[in-house]
Amino acid sequence: MATTTDSAVCCAPLGAPSLTDAQAEATAKVFKALADPHRVRIVNLLATSPEPVCVCEFTGPLGLSQPTVSHHLKKLVAAGLLEREQRGTWAYYSLRPDALGGLAAALDLQGASR
Amino acid sequence: MATTTDSAVCCAPLGAPSLTDAQAEATAKVFKALADPHRVRIVNLLATSPEPVCVCEFTGPLGLSQPTVSHHLKKLVAAGLLEREQRGTWAYYSLRPDALGGLAAALDLQGASR
Repeated sequence: MATTTDSAVCCAPLGAPSLTDAQAEATAKVFKALADPHRVRIVNLLATSPEPVCVCEFTGPLGLSQPTVSHHLKKLVAAGLLEREQRGTWAYYSLRPDALGGLAAALDLQGASR
Repeated sequence: MATTTDSAVCCAPLGAPSLTDAQAEATAKVFKALADPHRVRIVNLLATSPEPVCVCEFTGPLGLSQPTVSHHLKKLVAAGLLEREQRGTWAYYSLRPDALGGLAAALDLQGASR
């Protein structure tokens, strides 16, 4: 059973006429979740994997201990960027492509009111 | 005269087969520059302005002192996201749309090898 975070993922377009404080906060929070090279690599690994990835499979490529990997995964799930699925002993993670796509769309200023 | 930062703006696509450590670092650095609600608002203000914006024009909308605004602007310039232009006493800032567009493209997993 997939457990999906309830966090509303940002993002109002950065080219929108105006952002509310809440929208600016929500957008900054997602950027903050990605503001770490290990988390960028985790997203990259998931983006190139056809299947959900076990927490135990990140430690080798990232050169990190499992608690550290789990910490980074937790932050990415909390930001609404990943889905976590428990399979027996292990948790498996996958990207929420709509979440990354939403962030990409927010950064795309084409069609912005300039 | 426009003074443009030399920072290479990221970003290798997050869906690329693999990222080097340097690419992951560079990408995380740009996300970090945007991981603050005031900076998200600065980018939004610039995205919706048809002209470069004076440092003195940010203080009102952001409710921040000028030194604080200058600090945030400096971080965004260092990340390669803004251009700074000195006009007499005041500095004027504008977005580098290619920079935001590059980040948006990196987040767009369509065409990724999954």
